[in-house]
Amino acid sequence: MSAGINTYKIDLRELYFTLFEQFGFGQVAGQAPFDAWGPDEAKAVLEQTYRFAKDVLGPLNASGDREGCRVENGSVITPKGFKDAWKGVYEQGFKSISASPDHGGQGGPMMLSVLVEEILSGANSAFNMYPGLAYGAAELVAECGTPEQKKLYVERMLNGTWGGTMCLTEPQAGSDVGAAKSTARKNADGTYNIRGTKIFISGGDHDLAENVIHLVLARIEGAVPGTKGLSLFIVPKIRVKPDGSLQGPNDVTLGSIEHKMGIRASATCVLNFGENDGCVGELVGGIENVGMSQMFKMMNGARIAVGIQGLALASTAYFNALEYAKDRKQGAPAHKWKDPTAPRAAIIEHADVRRMLLEMKSHVEGIRALLVKLAMHTDKAHQLAGKDDTQAAYHRGQVELLTPLVKSYGSDQSFRLCAQAIQVFGGAGYCQDYPVEQYTRDSKIFSIYEGTNHIQAMDLVGRKMGQAGGAHFQQFMSDVGSFIEAHREHKIYGEAVKQLAAAQEGLMASAMAILGWSQDPAKMTLIPLSANRFLNMMSEVAVGWLLLDAAVIAERVGEKATGDEKAFYEGKRWSALWYARNVLPNVEQAARMMALEDTSSVDISTQAFGAI
Amino acid sequence: MSAGINTYKIDLRELYFTLFEQFGFGQVAGQAPFDAWGPDEAKAVLEQTYRFAKDVLGPLNASGDREGCRVENGSVITPKGFKDAWKGVYEQGFKSISASPDHGGQGGPMMLSVLVEEILSGANSAFNMYPGLAYGAAELVAECGTPEQKKLYVERMLNGTWGGTMCLTEPQAGSDVGAAKSTARKNADGTYNIRGTKIFISGGDHDLAENVIHLVLARIEGAVPGTKGLSLFIVPKIRVKPDGSLQGPNDVTLGSIEHKMGIRASATCVLNFGENDGCVGELVGGIENVGMSQMFKMMNGARIAVGIQGLALASTAYFNALEYAKDRKQGAPAHKWKDPTAPRAAIIEHADVRRMLLEMKSHVEGIRALLVKLAMHTDKAHQLAGKDDTQAAYHRGQVELLTPLVKSYGSDQSFRLCAQAIQVFGGAGYCQDYPVEQYTRDSKIFSIYEGTNHIQAMDLVGRKMGQAGGAHFQQFMSDVGSFIEAHREHKIYGEAVKQLAAAQEGLMASAMAILGWSQDPAKMTLIPLSANRFLNMMSEVAVGWLLLDAAVIAERVGEKATGDEKAFYEGKRWSALWYARNVLPNVEQAARMMALEDTSSVDISTQAFGAI
Repeated sequence: MSAGINTYKIDLRELYFTLFEQFGFGQVAGQAPFDAWGPDEAKAVLEQTYRFAKDVLGPLNASGDREGCRVENGSVITPKGFKDAWKGVYEQGFKSISASPDHGGQGGPMMLSVLVEEILSGANSAFNMYPGLAYGAAELVAECGTPEQKKLYVERMLNGTWGGTMCLTEPQAGSDVGAAKSTARKNADGTYNIRGTKIFISGGDHDLAENVIHLVLARIEGAVPGTKGLSLFIVPKIRVKPDGSLQGPNDVTLGSIEHKMGIRASATCVLNFGENDGCVGELVGGIENVGMSQMFKMMNGARIAVGIQGLALASTAYFNALEYAKDRKQGAPAHKWKDPTAPRAAIIEHADVRRMLLEMKSHVEGIRALLVKLAMHTDKAHQLAGKDDTQAAYHRGQVELLTPLVKSYGSDQSFRLCAQAIQVFGGAGYCQDYPVEQYTRDSKIFSIYEGTNHIQAMDLVGRKMGQAGGAHFQQFMSDVGSFIEAHREHKIYGEAVKQLAAAQEGLMASAMAILGWSQDPAKMTLIPLSANRFLNMMSEVAVGWLLLDAAVIAERVGEKATGDEKAFYEGKRWSALWYARNVLPNVEQAARMMALEDTSSVDISTQAFGAI
Repeated sequence: MSAGINTYKIDLRELYFTLFEQFGFGQVAGQAPFDAWGPDEAKAVLEQTYRFAKDVLGPLNASGDREGCRVENGSVITPKGFKDAWKGVYEQGFKSISASPDHGGQGGPMMLSVLVEEILSGANSAFNMYPGLAYGAAELVAECGTPEQKKLYVERMLNGTWGGTMCLTEPQAGSDVGAAKSTARKNADGTYNIRGTKIFISGGDHDLAENVIHLVLARIEGAVPGTKGLSLFIVPKIRVKPDGSLQGPNDVTLGSIEHKMGIRASATCVLNFGENDGCVGELVGGIENVGMSQMFKMMNGARIAVGIQGLALASTAYFNALEYAKDRKQGAPAHKWKDPTAPRAAIIEHADVRRMLLEMKSHVEGIRALLVKLAMHTDKAHQLAGKDDTQAAYHRGQVELLTPLVKSYGSDQSFRLCAQAIQVFGGAGYCQDYPVEQYTRDSKIFSIYEGTNHIQAMDLVGRKMGQAGGAHFQQFMSDVGSFIEAHREHKIYGEAVKQLAAAQEGLMASAMAILGWSQDPAKMTLIPLSANRFLNMMSEVAVGWLLLDAAVIAERVGEKATGDEKAFYEGKRWSALWYARNVLPNVEQAARMMALEDTSSVDISTQAFGAI
C-alpha cells in the first residue's frame, strides 16, 4: 500500500482569524517569555506545518489506515512512510514549539502549538499520536522528574530519538485506574522491579524511534489500595545508561495489538512488564505514592490533545464536504426544480446541503475558538505567574474549567460532524474513495480515551465547578455576562445575544440545581445522571458566546474588506447566527429537562432492562 | 476467514409484546386473507427465524465483514458461508411469508414478516440485502408485470433460484433520478436494447443464485426528459427462455465494486448495460414511461426495509451492550465510590451506563412499535380493500405517512444508538472483538440509500402531509389526541401524557407554519430548511405516543405478573417515562426554533463558506 494523494484540507485564514483577530496573539506573544514570537513567526510556522501536512502526513492517512500496524517478531511495524514522517516532524521542529528551551524546545506560546497540532492531527490522526504521546511523556518528566531524569530523558523524547507512552489502563480496571494491580518492588540500587499488564497503550511499541519510554502506574508493595497508593515509574523498553546509550532489553514485551474501528495506523498495545522478573523502572521524581497526580500533568495535556483531534477531523471533514458540494453537480436549482432540462446545480445550491455545511462550519469555528481560548489562558497564566497572582489564578482556573469541555464537546461533535460530512457526500462518502468515512471511524475513539466523556463531565460538575469555592465557574459566567451586557443592543447580533443570555440563565439554573443535589443525599444520584447534559449545555454557552464574539469582531475589522476577505468576514456572521438560532435554544430546554429531576435510569430495576 | 460465533442478540419477548399485546396480531390475523395465521404460528416462525439467525447468519456477520466481497473473472464472489445461508433462507421460507400464494408465497401478514426481517437483518445486515432486494424486485414484477412476466420471474425470484436488484442510480445523477441517461431502443421483437451505466447497485452481481434479474430505469429514445420519460425494464444477467431455462450472457458487465465503510459483505456494484450493444430488456408491464411510479412500488418497500435494518442493528447493539454491562465489573458501586477496597460493581450499576442503556432500550422499543404499526395498517388496508373503502383508505394513508418516519428516524437513531453502544463498552467497543463497531459502520449507510433522509423529509412535508387534503396527517393527529384524552389523568402516566400533549401542540404549530410557508414564495425556502427537523419532531411524537401506549397496556396486562414477566412489564414503564421526560420536551423546543424562521443557511453567500 503506497502513499496516496493528500486529503487534508484547511483554510489557514480561519486559524489566523482565531489566533490574531479574536484572541490577540500579538498581545500574548511579544511579551516574556514569548518575546521571540510575533504574528509573522506564527504564520510562518503554520504555513510550514500545512506544507508538511499536505506533502507528507496527508498522503499517508488513507494508506496508513488500509495497511494498519502489524506485529513481527514481537515488535510493531508501523505503516509504510511513517518512519520518514517521524523524521520530518522532528527535523522541522513541530513538537518543540512550546517546549522549554531548557530541553531544546523553542519556548513558544501554546496558542500557536495547539493550532500546529490541529494541522498535524487533521492530516493524520493516527500518525500524530506517536509523537504526541512522546511529547506528553516528556513534559511530565520535565515537570516531575529528578534533575538526572530530566537530563537523561526529556530532550531525547522531545527530539524524536525516543518515543514515549502513558501506561494506566489494566484489563480488569479500565476507567477505574485505582484498581490497578501492577506492582513495584524496590531493588537495592534504588530502582524498582515492575510487574503487570497494561492494555490500550497507544504507541506502546513501534519502529519509529530507537527506544520507547513508558510511564507506568504501579503500586509499591505495601502501599494503600486505590489511586492514593499508585506510584509512577519510568520504564524504558530498552534499558539506558546514564549517558543515554542503550543497554539491552528491559523485559517489556508486546502482548498483542488491537484491531480497531479506526486510528488503525496507531498501534494500540497490550504490554507485559516483568514477565521474566527483569523489568526495571525508576520512580518519577523519586517520590512514592504520588503517581496519580503526576500522571494528571500528562493527562490534562492528553485531554486537550483529544479535543484537538476532534476539532482537526471535524474541520478537514468540513472542508472536504465543502469542496465536494461546490464541485458535484446534481439536481435542478431550487427555483427550477420542476424543470428537468435546467442545467444541474452544484449541490451546495441545495438548502439542506447548505444547512449541513453551515452547521459544520459553525461548530468547527466555535470549538477552535474554545481551544485557542484555553491555550491563551495557559499562556497568560504562565506569563503572569509570580507577577500577578490573582490574574494568574484566574487564567489557571479557566484552563481547569475548559479542559473537560474541549475534550468532550470537541470529541462528541467531531464524530457527529464527520458523519454529517458523509451525509453531504451521499453514497460516495460511504466509500473509501473519500476520506470522510475514515474520519468518522477515527473520531469515534475520541469520546472514550483519556477519560470517557462521562468522566470529563463528572470532572466538571464534581471537581472543576467547585474549585476555589466556585470562583472559576463564576468568573466564566461573569465573562459571558460582560459580553452580553456590552452587545445586548447590537444592531445585527442583539437578538442572538439575547438567545445567549437565555441560555446562560438556563445554565446558571442548572448549576444551582446541581449544587442543591450535592447537598441532598436523596438527590445525589441526579448528578451523574445529569453531568453529560450539563457539560454539553456549558459547552454550547461557551461556543455560542465565542462565535458571537468572533462575529462582533469580524463586523468591526471586516467593515472595509473586499473580495475574499469580505466573504470571509461575512462567514463569521452566519456561523454565529446559525448557532444562536439552532443550538443555543437547546440550552434553555436542557435546563427545563434537568429541572424535571428524572431518575428513571436508576429507578428501573436491573432485571427490567431485559432478559439477556 | 471462517465463520465465528454468533453475536446477534434479541429478547423475543419484546417482539411478542409489540405484535400480540400492543398491536393485536390476533385480531388482524385470524381473518381473511390471513386466517391461517394465529399467534402460535407467528411465534413458531419467529423462533425458527431466531434459531437460523443464531446458528447461521450471526456467525457469518463478522467474518463476512472482514473477508468482504471480491471480483474474480468479472464476477462477484461473496464471503465464505453466504451460499449456504442463501440456501437456508429459502429452504426455510423466510422470504415468502407475506408473498402471495399465487407465486408460491405463504400469504401471511406483514406484521409478522417485518419482525422476521428484523431478526435476519439484525443477525447479518449485509447478507440479508441479497434476498431482500430479490424479494422487492419480485414483488414489483408481481404487481406491475405482464402475466407472462409474472409467470416467468416472480416465483423464481421468491424461491431463491434467481436474485434481483433495483437499478436507478447513475454516476452523474445520484439522488436526481430523473437525470438518468440510460437508454432503451425498441427491437423488432418487442424487446428493448438497453445501454447505460448504473452505480451503487446493491447485490448487482453475486454467486448466490444462478441468475440475477435487474430492474433497470432507462429512457426510451424520444421520451421526455426527467422522471416522466423513464421506463422500467427487466434485464436478466443471463438471458432466459420462456420456460425459465438459461440462454447465455446478456451483455451486463460488472464494472467494479465499492470499498465501503460498512455492509462490506454486500456487493455494491457498478454495472454496465449494453457495452457491446447486446443487452436485451423487457418493458415491465408492457407500458412505456411509467417506470418511476413502478419503481416506487419497490422503493416504498425498500424504505421500510431500511427502517427495519436500522431498528435491527440498534436492537442487537442494545442487547450486546446490556449483556456486557451486566458482565463487566469495573469501579466501586455508587454508594461506596470512595472505598477502593469495596468489591467492584458491574458497570450496569453506574448511573451513566444505565442512562445510556435506557435511552437505547426506549428508542429501540418505540421504533419497533412504529414499524409494527405501519405493518398493521398495511395488513388492515389489504383486508378492508373492497369491504370498507373509508377504513381501507385511512389505513393506506397511515402507511404513506409513516413510511418516511420509519426510514429516517429508524436510520438516524440506529447510527446514533450503535455508536452509543460503543460508548457503553468503552475502549473494548472500539475493537473488532465485539460487534458494536461493525454495527456502527454498517448503519451509517441507512440514512443515505433508498432516498437520503432529507428526501424522506421532503416526501413527508412536500407530499405525504398534503395527501388527501391533509387527511392522513389529521387522522394521525386525531389518533394521538384520542390517546391523550383517554390517559391525561392516568395515575402513573398523567404527567408524561401531558408532555406528549405539549409535544403534539408543538408539532401542530410547526405543521401550520409549513403550510403557511408553502403559500408564500418569499418563505418557501424555509420548507427544505426545516423538513428534517419536522420529520424528527413527528417521529418523536409518534414514538413517544406508542411508548406510552405500550406502557399503559403493560400496566394493565402486567398487573398480576411475577418474576421475569413482572420485570418485563416494568421495563415498558421506564421506556415510556424516560422518553417522555428526555425526548418529548425537545419537540416543543424544535417548534420554537422553527418559529424563528432562520434562513441563515441560504442567506450566507456560497463564497462565505470558505476559500476551498
